[in-house]
Amino acid sequence: MSIRIGILGYGNLGRGVECAVKQSPDMELAAVFTRRDPSAVSILTKEAAVCNVADAEEWKDKIDVMILCGGSATDLPEQTPEYVRFFNVVDSFDTHAKIPEHFENVDKAARQSGRIGIISVGWDPGMFSLNRMYANAILPEGKDYTFWGKGVSQGHSDAVRRIAGVKNAKQYTIPVDDALESVRAGENPELTTRQKHTRECFVVLEEGADAAKVEKEIKTMPNYFADYDTTVHFISEEELMASHSGIPHGGFVIRSGKTGWEQENKHVIEYSLKLDSNPEFTASVIVAYARAAYRLSQEGQSGCKTVFDIAPAYLSAKSPEELRAALL
Amino acid sequence: MSIRIGILGYGNLGRGVECAVKQSPDMELAAVFTRRDPSAVSILTKEAAVCNVADAEEWKDKIDVMILCGGSATDLPEQTPEYVRFFNVVDSFDTHAKIPEHFENVDKAARQSGRIGIISVGWDPGMFSLNRMYANAILPEGKDYTFWGKGVSQGHSDAVRRIAGVKNAKQYTIPVDDALESVRAGENPELTTRQKHTRECFVVLEEGADAAKVEKEIKTMPNYFADYDTTVHFISEEELMASHSGIPHGGFVIRSGKTGWEQENKHVIEYSLKLDSNPEFTASVIVAYARAAYRLSQEGQSGCKTVFDIAPAYLSAKSPEELRAALL
Repeated sequence: MSIRIGILGYGNLGRGVECAVKQSPDMELAAVFTRRDPSAVSILTKEAAVCNVADAEEWKDKIDVMILCGGSATDLPEQTPEYVRFFNVVDSFDTHAKIPEHFENVDKAARQSGRIGIISVGWDPGMFSLNRMYANAILPEGKDYTFWGKGVSQGHSDAVRRIAGVKNAKQYTIPVDDALESVRAGENPELTTRQKHTRECFVVLEEGADAAKVEKEIKTMPNYFADYDTTVHFISEEELMASHSGIPHGGFVIRSGKTGWEQENKHVIEYSLKLDSNPEFTASVIVAYARAAYRLSQEGQSGCKTVFDIAPAYLSAKSPEELRAALL
Repeated sequence: MSIRIGILGYGNLGRGVECAVKQSPDMELAAVFTRRDPSAVSILTKEAAVCNVADAEEWKDKIDVMILCGGSATDLPEQTPEYVRFFNVVDSFDTHAKIPEHFENVDKAARQSGRIGIISVGWDPGMFSLNRMYANAILPEGKDYTFWGKGVSQGHSDAVRRIAGVKNAKQYTIPVDDALESVRAGENPELTTRQKHTRECFVVLEEGADAAKVEKEIKTMPNYFADYDTTVHFISEEELMASHSGIPHGGFVIRSGKTGWEQENKHVIEYSLKLDSNPEFTASVIVAYARAAYRLSQEGQSGCKTVFDIAPAYLSAKSPEELRAALL
């Protein structure tokens, strides 16, 4: 029997989940839940239902894992504890500082309902977190580095779009090559914010807007740009659509450490991602963890889990025997 | 209370384990077991005992995890099922083709004794396997590549040393840059053995040996060298000691895959290691899994496990709360 998946929230991430479910032979998409009028939402999977989010509870015996595709700012802090009362759930909550609080809320609700809630799944938090954790456990004496990019930052793109005179914009976060090379060489550099990443903006101006003023406003914006070397390019709406409509991202997690007794030996562990589509990759990680949520639930487990708590074999459609023979 | 570690077999790997235990605040080295005369073996940890391997069983209540540092060819297939009768054990069994058989033997003995046996721990098998498995679960449609090096292959160095006229030798396995770049670019190349790695040998000749004959014998050696582009350098014993006495290694595990519905998006996941000391890094991985063996045993679990079966949090000396707050 297939694992029956529900998707709550049908934006870029929800569509990514739909694509990832199609690649999973042991899963089927049962229904998509939306706050919009269901009749106005057209999904890719012909066999699946489109329902109003208000009717989700009715599906509690027809869905094995509900994947929550809302945003971390306001949706997930409410939705994950709410829906884990009826479903095993997976979310991609990514406000790092609030993860402990979110964990407690989801854990309490999940223990009461006897269901599994896996939170903060994706690539960061998610695969990057896993690699930081493994590398720290292996090399207790060392130093961690995370670089993001080259990729589109939605938050920074939005910040540029809010400036008066800006019609549209995309912002790329770019790791600084020299910094990366120094870390890879095991030099353990101390790096400032400016030394780690640069920012590049492609901006479409409103008719008659003052380019110099917009550029200055971007480059001096506190938190978002003031601490970085930022380049601003003014382009046409057509060029933005043609050359900057993708949502690529990626990055590098590196730990540099040492072992030995008196003579020291250096080691560098590096994990990197180069993603054409941030939401589709995030969705692919989430769907693998949905498989884990289903299996943990079948075993009778309940409560909130993170990627740290889940044995890797739970993510794979292959059997333990196949994994040992083929991938170990 | 500290986790009490035993080391069985005191070569490069055993000494590496000793170093890694020193870096672990929650562990202590209880004893080293050797087939040599214990009084002739001097270890680094002053507080630990040195014992004959024949007396190991007497330590069964004084050691929480016994780390087996023997070789995969003849030692571990016997030792791991034998010692899991008395101890939780971790080994680094690395004969990939025989892992399923080794698993069955260890599992049977471990279930009988109620202890935990974790097998095939290190970097390949081990961390490389984990990264292959995670990447396959996330991107079911894709292609895997593993490159080894630059590093010293013990087996190939030994093969060169067995040639008549060779006094000493070191062999380096080196990944081919062009192949790596093509894989990273998501080109999914089909690569022959020769296209993936080159081999470089540093050879010290016996007095009066025929260099041309030795070189030909190396380059045409079946399995070891015939399928590779091999470079041979003849050097003095002094230069070999001065420049090639380390045991560096490393490599790259890359999965290139795609997501999407009709329009495809490409993704590349890369994990790499650059290790100054192969045995010390392997030992560091093993010691993290020794912590997991101890905790699983404390929970009442038993049987054979691999890296696929163990939730990452078990490897860390940090609490789940600390991990969520600091590394997620």
